[in-house]
Amino acid sequence: MYKYLDKVNSPSDIKLMNVEQMDELSKDIRKFLVKSVSQTGGHLASNLGVVELTLALHKVFESPKDKIVWDVGHQSYVHKMITGRKGEFNTLRQLNGLSGFPKECESPHDIFDTGHSSTSISVAHGIACARDIKGEDSNVIAVIGDGSITGGMALEALNHLGHTKTDMIVILNDNEMSIDKNVGGMSRYLSSIVRNSAANKVKNEVEKILNIAPGGELISKTANKFKDSIISTFIPQECELFESLGIKYYGPIDGHNIKELIEILEKCKQKKGPKLLHVITKKGKGYRFAENEPHKYHGVSKFDIREGIKSSGTKSISSLVGEKLVSMGEKDDRVCAITAAMPSGTGLNLFEKVYPNRYYDVGIAEQHATTFAAGLAKNGLKPYFAVYSSFLQRAYDQVIHDVCITKKPVTFLIDRAGIVGNDGETHHGMFDLSYLNAIPNITVMAPKDCKELELMMDLSLELKEPVAIRYPRGGSYYLESGKYEPIKVGSYEVLSKGEDILILAIGNMVKHALKAKELLEKEDINPTIVNARFLKPIDKNLLSDLLKTHKKVITIEDNTIIGGFGSRINKYITDNKIDVNIMNLGLPEAFVPHGNADEIYDTIGLSPEKIAMRVKDCKLER
Amino acid sequence: MYKYLDKVNSPSDIKLMNVEQMDELSKDIRKFLVKSVSQTGGHLASNLGVVELTLALHKVFESPKDKIVWDVGHQSYVHKMITGRKGEFNTLRQLNGLSGFPKECESPHDIFDTGHSSTSISVAHGIACARDIKGEDSNVIAVIGDGSITGGMALEALNHLGHTKTDMIVILNDNEMSIDKNVGGMSRYLSSIVRNSAANKVKNEVEKILNIAPGGELISKTANKFKDSIISTFIPQECELFESLGIKYYGPIDGHNIKELIEILEKCKQKKGPKLLHVITKKGKGYRFAENEPHKYHGVSKFDIREGIKSSGTKSISSLVGEKLVSMGEKDDRVCAITAAMPSGTGLNLFEKVYPNRYYDVGIAEQHATTFAAGLAKNGLKPYFAVYSSFLQRAYDQVIHDVCITKKPVTFLIDRAGIVGNDGETHHGMFDLSYLNAIPNITVMAPKDCKELELMMDLSLELKEPVAIRYPRGGSYYLESGKYEPIKVGSYEVLSKGEDILILAIGNMVKHALKAKELLEKEDINPTIVNARFLKPIDKNLLSDLLKTHKKVITIEDNTIIGGFGSRINKYITDNKIDVNIMNLGLPEAFVPHGNADEIYDTIGLSPEKIAMRVKDCKLER
Repeated sequence: MYKYLDKVNSPSDIKLMNVEQMDELSKDIRKFLVKSVSQTGGHLASNLGVVELTLALHKVFESPKDKIVWDVGHQSYVHKMITGRKGEFNTLRQLNGLSGFPKECESPHDIFDTGHSSTSISVAHGIACARDIKGEDSNVIAVIGDGSITGGMALEALNHLGHTKTDMIVILNDNEMSIDKNVGGMSRYLSSIVRNSAANKVKNEVEKILNIAPGGELISKTANKFKDSIISTFIPQECELFESLGIKYYGPIDGHNIKELIEILEKCKQKKGPKLLHVITKKGKGYRFAENEPHKYHGVSKFDIREGIKSSGTKSISSLVGEKLVSMGEKDDRVCAITAAMPSGTGLNLFEKVYPNRYYDVGIAEQHATTFAAGLAKNGLKPYFAVYSSFLQRAYDQVIHDVCITKKPVTFLIDRAGIVGNDGETHHGMFDLSYLNAIPNITVMAPKDCKELELMMDLSLELKEPVAIRYPRGGSYYLESGKYEPIKVGSYEVLSKGEDILILAIGNMVKHALKAKELLEKEDINPTIVNARFLKPIDKNLLSDLLKTHKKVITIEDNTIIGGFGSRINKYITDNKIDVNIMNLGLPEAFVPHGNADEIYDTIGLSPEKIAMRVKDCKLER
Repeated sequence: MYKYLDKVNSPSDIKLMNVEQMDELSKDIRKFLVKSVSQTGGHLASNLGVVELTLALHKVFESPKDKIVWDVGHQSYVHKMITGRKGEFNTLRQLNGLSGFPKECESPHDIFDTGHSSTSISVAHGIACARDIKGEDSNVIAVIGDGSITGGMALEALNHLGHTKTDMIVILNDNEMSIDKNVGGMSRYLSSIVRNSAANKVKNEVEKILNIAPGGELISKTANKFKDSIISTFIPQECELFESLGIKYYGPIDGHNIKELIEILEKCKQKKGPKLLHVITKKGKGYRFAENEPHKYHGVSKFDIREGIKSSGTKSISSLVGEKLVSMGEKDDRVCAITAAMPSGTGLNLFEKVYPNRYYDVGIAEQHATTFAAGLAKNGLKPYFAVYSSFLQRAYDQVIHDVCITKKPVTFLIDRAGIVGNDGETHHGMFDLSYLNAIPNITVMAPKDCKELELMMDLSLELKEPVAIRYPRGGSYYLESGKYEPIKVGSYEVLSKGEDILILAIGNMVKHALKAKELLEKEDINPTIVNARFLKPIDKNLLSDLLKTHKKVITIEDNTIIGGFGSRINKYITDNKIDVNIMNLGLPEAFVPHGNADEIYDTIGLSPEKIAMRVKDCKLER
C-alpha cells in the first residue's frame, strides 16, 4: 500500500536508503500520518513537521545505542513508526494502546518518557555524563522546539551544559510555534538569525535571478538544484546567544532537506563537545489544512481528510472561561489575563482579542507567569493565570513563595483538572487538590458545572487573597437551570437530601454522584448528595449538621486519593472525634495511563455506575 | 557614634549627601553591619558587597514611589538600615524581630517578600506592567545576583521582558558568587565580559603606567583619580547574551564607585525600555575575613569581630551526609552527587573533593538538577541530589514527571526539613512530607537521628526506585548507642512500649517525643512511642497490632499538619474503620515566621514540653 514505508520496520531499513528514496519515504509517512491520525485523533502538525529530521537522525545515528531524547514527545510519531510500531497506530492514545508520547516501556528506542516541555536537554545531559563516567561511546541527542527551549529548566540545562562541555547535540527544531505562535525575546532573536543567515541571503539572491531569467520549468528545476547545492554548503552562522553559554552553534538549516540534514548531522557527530543545531521546519508540512492553521492541527480529534476539522458545535469549558473573563474585564479594568503559551487551549485568546493590553502570553514559563502575576497584583491589578493543572506543578514553589505567603490576590484558573484522557500520565490533573491543600492562605474551589464556574469567577473578583478554581477538560455542561445564587466562601450545597449515607463530591465528580444517585434510586438507596464546592475552607456548619444524621460518609474527587479533598474531610472528622465510617473515592495512588476519559473513570471506579456500586457496598457494610 | 550613619533615617537623607559624604557613610555602614551581625548572626558578606550600590540606588531613585525589588533578599540589610530600621538590628532574625529578608509588612520600602532565588525580574516586570496599564509614572528596579540570574525563572522572565519591552532596570550584581562560587556557561561568559571590557583594559593600561612611573603617594593618588575619571566615562560594552533577548546592556561597572554608579543609574533612568546594568561587586568587602572567605561569611552565627568565625566543634548533619556519601562512593562507583549551588550548605563539598568527576554543581537550578539526575539514573548511575526542602519545591513537577512516573532510582537528600529557624517563612521545610506524600512510586523516609540517617542512605543504595530522605538543619545527634540494625522498607520501630496512648513520631520529632516521655513519666503517664521512619510505605502490620491495644493515637511531624504524615495515618485508620481517637500534631496551617528554632517549636506546640502537655490533655479526654 505504501511503496517505501512498507519496507521500513526498523531504523536499519532507513540506513539502506539513499536520499531520493528517503524523500519518497517522507511522502509515504505524511500520507500515513494524516490518514492514521484522522481516524484516531492525536498530534498531527508537530509530526508532519519533523518527518525529514527524524529520518535523517535515524540515518546518521544508531538508535538505541545512540540516544535520541524527544522534548515534550508529541512529535515522536515518525520515530515510533520507523522503530517497529507503525502497525499499532490504530490503537494510538487509546486505553492499552500506543502512547502519544515516548514511552520507555514501549520500545528501547524510546529513551525517556515525556509529556511536559523543556526536559530533554537535562535528560540527555544526564545520560551523556553517565556515559562519560562509565567510559562508554555513544551519541546523545536532545530534540527540542523553539518554544520549549525558552522554558526555564531548558535554559538552566544549557547553562550547565556550557559548563561541563559534555559531548552531546541539541537539535533546536524551530518552527516558530510551540502549540500557539511563540513569543519572547529569544523567539524574535531566532527569527532574526534565520532572516539574516548567509544561506538565506544566497537563496534569496538566486531566487531573484530565477525570477528575472526567461525559461520554462526545466531551467527553473535546474536552477533550484543549483540553489539547493549552494545552501547545503554549510555556512556557519553567528549566534552569540548559545555561543556565549559555551555551546557551539550550527545553522540555521532547512529541516526538510534530507541531504543537508544528513551532512550537517555527520559534521555534528564528528565534532566533540556541546553543540546546538538550529533546524527550521514547517509545522503541519505536507497537509494543506495543517500548514495553514498549524495550531488548530496540533492536537486533533478524528476528522475528514478532505474537509479538515469541522467545529464540534459544543463550546468547551475553556472557551467559556475565556468569554467570562472578557465580561469581567469589561466590568473591572483591573482584570488581566496570563497564559504560559496556551492562549487557545485555555480560552484566553478571546481575552487577548478584546483586551490586548491587559493580556500576557509569557511563553512556556509557568514559574515566571505565577510570580509575574504576583507582581501585577502587588501593583493593584487582578491577574488571572489560566493554566493546565499538570503544568501548574511547575510553579509550585512560586505559588507558595510569591503568591501565598503575602496573600497576593492572584487567581489560578486551573484547566484540565482530573482525568484528561488520551494524553495520559503526564497530563492528568491529579495532584492539584493535594498540592494546593497544603498551602496556607489560598481559597480552592471546584464547580459542579459551568454556571457555578462563572459564579466562582465572580466570587474570585471580590476576594482579596489567592484563589484557585479547578475545572475539567471537555465541553461545557449544566446540571440544573434557574436556581443559581452568588456563592459564599466556604459554602457547600445540599443537592439532594437523603438518609444514612452522605456523599460529599467535589467539582466534576458532582455530576458523577448525581448520575449514580439516579441508578441507586432504582434500588431504593437514597444517599444525601452534597456539592462540596470548596476544598478549603470547608463548610463546617453544614458538615456538623449532616454528620449528626449520617453515619456513613463517602468523599469523591477526581484527584489522587492522597492528601486532597478526602484527606481534609477525614481530618475534620477525626479532629472532631465524630463517630462515622468514611470511604474516600478518588484517583488511585498510582499514575493513571492514557485512554478515553470515560473508560478511565470506569476502570478506576469513578464512573457513575462504579460509584453507585461502591455506595451500595457501603450501604450493605455492617 | 557614627558620624554619617547617625544622620540617616530615611532615603531623603541620602539625597542631601554628596559623593564624598556617601563614601564616608559607606564606611559607617560597614562598621555597623559587622558589629551588628557579629552580635545577632545573619547574612554578612552579601550585605557588605552592596553598600555603595544600595546608597546609589536610593540617591538616584525615589523609594518607595520607585520600586526596588531585591532578589533573594539576603542583601537587603543596607536598604533596611537607611529606610528607618537601623534601630531594630539588635532584633534581627529573632522571634518578632526584624526579618533578614525584605518584608512588605515591615516597611513600604520593602516592595516584595523574598527568600528564594531568581524571582525579582518577574515581580518587577509585573509591577512595571501594572504601572503602564494604570498610566502611572515610576521606575522599577530588580537587583539580582549573577547566581540568581541563572535560575530558570529569571531566564524565563528575561525572555518575556525582551518581548514586552517594558521600561524597567535589571541590576545584575555580579560578585561571581551566589552562596558558593558560581558555575555555569553564563558565569564564565560574564567573567569574560568583565575581563575584556574596554574600561577594564584602560584601567589596566593606566595601572601599568603608574607602576613604572616614579613618585610617592601624591602622584599615585592623582593618577588614581585620573584613572577613575576615565573609567567613569561610560563605555558601552557588547553583551550579546542580553542584547539578543532584546534587553539593552550597560556595563560592566565598578559597584563600589558611588560616583560612577550614580552617573550610570541616571543614564539608565532616562533611557526607556528594558535595561540590564552589570555591576561588579566584591562580596564581603571591607571586612578582611569576609573578603577572604565570602562563602563562610555568607550566613553567620554570632562571632568575635577581631578573630572571625571559629568552628563550633559540632559536626553538622549536612557534613555527616557529605561524609557518608563519600564512603558510599568508595564502595559503589555508580554513586554520584548533585547540588544546586549549595556545595557547602549540603555537605557535598566533601564529595566534590574526593570524587570530582562524579560530582555536579548545576547552579541555582533545582528543576534541571532533578531531571539531570533522572538522566544519570537512566544510564545506570545512582544519583543523590542533596537539596534544601523549601528549594526542592522548585522541582515539584520534575520529581513527578521525570523521576517518579518511570521510577528512576534518584535519591533526594532533603536537608533543612522542618523549622530552620531564623531564615523564616520562605526557608522552613514544612511542605515536603505533604508534596511527596501525594506522588506515587517514591519511598519517603525521615530518620530519628544521624545513625539512622546513615542506615537510610545505605538502604537507598539498594533500592531501585525513587527515594527521599528528609532531615533537619543543625548539629548531628544520636538518640541511643549500639543497637542499630539495617532498615527494612516500611518498617517502624517501637522505642518504648507503654499503654493507652500511641505516639507515632516521624524524623526529628522522635527526639521531641522521647523528651516528652521523660517529662510524662514523672506524672505516671506512659505512652507507647514509635519511630515512624517511613512516611510511606507505612508499617501496616505494626500499626494493626498496636491499634488493637491503644485507643488514642497521636501523630507528630515537623511538617504542615495538612496532607503529610498525620494525614496518611488518618487515612489508614479510617480506611480500616479502626475505632480510635486521633490527634495530629504538626506545623500549623499557616506560614511560620522567623526566630530561634526551639522558640518556634515551643510557640507552635511542638517542643517536648508542649508535646507532653498535649499528651496529658489527650490522656484526660473522655
